[in-house]
Amino acid sequence: MSTNENKTTLAWQLAEYITAARPSDLPADVKHEATRSFVNWVGCALGGSQHPIARTAAEALCEFSGLPEATLIGAKRKVDLLTASLLNCVSSGAHAFDDTHADMVLHPVGPIAASLMALAERTPVSGADFLLAMVLGVEVESRLARAIVVPPAQCDVGWYLTGLTGGVGAAAAAGKILGLSAQQIVWACGIACGEGSGFRAQHGSMCSPLIPGHAGHTGLRAAFMAKRGFTSTPHHLEGARGFLDLYSTKSNPAAITDQLGSRYEIMRNTYKPYPCGIVIHPIIDACLDLRAKHGISHDNIARVSVRAHPVAVTLANTRHPADGMISKVSIHHWVAVSFIDGAAGIAQLDKVAVPAIVALRDRVDVVSDTTIAPDAADVVVELRDGAKWHCHIDHGIGSSDNPMTDRDLDRKFTNLAQGVIDDRASTELLAQCWKLGELADAGAIGRAAA
Amino acid sequence: MSTNENKTTLAWQLAEYITAARPSDLPADVKHEATRSFVNWVGCALGGSQHPIARTAAEALCEFSGLPEATLIGAKRKVDLLTASLLNCVSSGAHAFDDTHADMVLHPVGPIAASLMALAERTPVSGADFLLAMVLGVEVESRLARAIVVPPAQCDVGWYLTGLTGGVGAAAAAGKILGLSAQQIVWACGIACGEGSGFRAQHGSMCSPLIPGHAGHTGLRAAFMAKRGFTSTPHHLEGARGFLDLYSTKSNPAAITDQLGSRYEIMRNTYKPYPCGIVIHPIIDACLDLRAKHGISHDNIARVSVRAHPVAVTLANTRHPADGMISKVSIHHWVAVSFIDGAAGIAQLDKVAVPAIVALRDRVDVVSDTTIAPDAADVVVELRDGAKWHCHIDHGIGSSDNPMTDRDLDRKFTNLAQGVIDDRASTELLAQCWKLGELADAGAIGRAAA
Repeated sequence: MSTNENKTTLAWQLAEYITAARPSDLPADVKHEATRSFVNWVGCALGGSQHPIARTAAEALCEFSGLPEATLIGAKRKVDLLTASLLNCVSSGAHAFDDTHADMVLHPVGPIAASLMALAERTPVSGADFLLAMVLGVEVESRLARAIVVPPAQCDVGWYLTGLTGGVGAAAAAGKILGLSAQQIVWACGIACGEGSGFRAQHGSMCSPLIPGHAGHTGLRAAFMAKRGFTSTPHHLEGARGFLDLYSTKSNPAAITDQLGSRYEIMRNTYKPYPCGIVIHPIIDACLDLRAKHGISHDNIARVSVRAHPVAVTLANTRHPADGMISKVSIHHWVAVSFIDGAAGIAQLDKVAVPAIVALRDRVDVVSDTTIAPDAADVVVELRDGAKWHCHIDHGIGSSDNPMTDRDLDRKFTNLAQGVIDDRASTELLAQCWKLGELADAGAIGRAAA
Repeated sequence: MSTNENKTTLAWQLAEYITAARPSDLPADVKHEATRSFVNWVGCALGGSQHPIARTAAEALCEFSGLPEATLIGAKRKVDLLTASLLNCVSSGAHAFDDTHADMVLHPVGPIAASLMALAERTPVSGADFLLAMVLGVEVESRLARAIVVPPAQCDVGWYLTGLTGGVGAAAAAGKILGLSAQQIVWACGIACGEGSGFRAQHGSMCSPLIPGHAGHTGLRAAFMAKRGFTSTPHHLEGARGFLDLYSTKSNPAAITDQLGSRYEIMRNTYKPYPCGIVIHPIIDACLDLRAKHGISHDNIARVSVRAHPVAVTLANTRHPADGMISKVSIHHWVAVSFIDGAAGIAQLDKVAVPAIVALRDRVDVVSDTTIAPDAADVVVELRDGAKWHCHIDHGIGSSDNPMTDRDLDRKFTNLAQGVIDDRASTELLAQCWKLGELADAGAIGRAAA
């Protein structure tokens, strides 16, 4: 039913590209960036697995798990594939330390990698096929998001992009591994597209990482359903009352197929040096830089004036966060901890009630400035002794113009793995992740991340 | 974290109402309407369980099922609670024969009843508590939908209301049975609200009943997560970038709490007598009436002239449907089967190629008439022997001005159960459903519906 094979639809064009793609099509830089994304993801999932969000979700859902075929990362247990795709993606997002697309607030890899990791433990998948499927999934997910949010497209800032399109990416990626036909991939993507969800009022609650986890779960499930012949409409993207129609005020359908196979969305992926809203990162760079250069003691700070991109101010203008969830979206908090601790890591997330930090947050002013780029920041610190220092960051560390190096990613991984697996296992797992593209059996990584 | 107990939020007001509600609060007419809704739902789930949509979904998902604690309706197997909530709701919507809220295109009971049925098989729940939870779930689901779609509210017609709010209703209903605190109910509803999804481009594909099924699944899961302490924001309904903000162009927040506890949404629920487009229903009433009153043999029919509301003609002017999905929107088909079979049920859906039916469809004329109300129809049948009979229906059976009687619901149930369970089991199950409010253990119904 509704097997209308209208091959001119956007979904069909994507599906035909996906079924035809081969690992050898991927340029070396694309493979490398995909590997970097994967290293970052495994580290985040390991580190996040111990977070109360991930633990609470696992406690609630493991009792409903079916056949234990897939590793729950950072735990000594396996769960069914669908549960694993949800929980491992929740882990990777628990610290909000996961990847971000440079052109939009999309965290592309979580739903896709979590689904593929689960699949690869059931049926052996070569590392090359795994990487290809991941790249294709990111392609679908990012292009759909681009078509509703990146100008000339316009959409309400309230939508949670990863929730809307992450499942479609996961469906495409899983569909590739499951060997679905183009028609089945259209169905899988359509099913997942109709189950896309999430809005930003949830930010600052445990739902923040749940929504991508939910997307991964629905995407993988959609691929299994489509494989059995469960249908969706082929025009779910451009059709009336479909994805583009509903989620954007102005859509850009061309973004979905433009330069498909020659321009890769994964090349726009970036990795966070700090576990908080990416819009805050260049501000942290500036504060750490000022502190280091001028030996500033926080007691001596009279005022910190931050000029930031308007979106940063919209999303993160929280002076006094109540807890370690809200602190992720508090410019004031990260300014304060940067000056006081000289560090901005997991350890700083929960320091919301430290008196010196609270006091310094009260001396931070944040101003929205349309002349500041999204990856830039401008910070002036005035000291009680009359000194005044200024730092302008053009491109924050981790932005696409100033990316984290492979060694930066190694350090981030090692830091996140600490206390979850022992140092030797961490070193071995990290090496294995970097070699993903050459592995005969990508499922080995999941098993090693237990 | 994020345990911001802002008790003025809409979600808190709903949660406090839910936790305080007792079975004895429900007026007798509310209990009766809830029981009618339940009878209708069990019948639809039984009948739909044999539909290819339900079977395909079950084939795909049962392999991931965990502990077999809940009956898969119409099948000889059990699955885990979450899988049951999804699959049983898919069954109840498979024939598009489920309930409809009189004030909006919302099919309220599916996600809620499927979740409660699953829960009641794990831990005994009294029928009175089950009915109360169902009423409360429908309350939450319908009020949220009302607040975005019923004037003065306005929202894009493309949203699939049951997908957006059915999960929240299921979370509230399940939360009541699980004994959640008001705070936990706020979390459960918030989690489910952020996972609401669905758009109408999917109509006519298998996704049509999947989306309510998905809602039921997310709602029940949300209740289990909230019970473990998984949080959401308390202002997910009225907050910036929240439910009302994103899904409506103009919201009516007052509809969420207006006359809470004195006006019951379940009283606006309606039930379909025929498994086809509701616009065709009064036409079927007229044909069945003419056939019965005048003993008309279809061989003797020269012409059937139908005058119908313009929307009926726009949506259902299909002379020769290709299959059982398209026959749902063919006036000609239902006129023909009404006269030939004297019935308009599931059995008639697929009879698209029966020669006598094809021939009679060719002798049906359909005319759009602006003087005919949406729930009315006017039919004239001319016989080969010169006789001519006329029937005008003011309000089709199942409309809010001419609701299905309890006996009509009995017949619908019996018809749907035929071929799924034997006649004796059907009679017993039906009697049990009517007595739901008095049962000591509502789970008995699920077990009897296997």
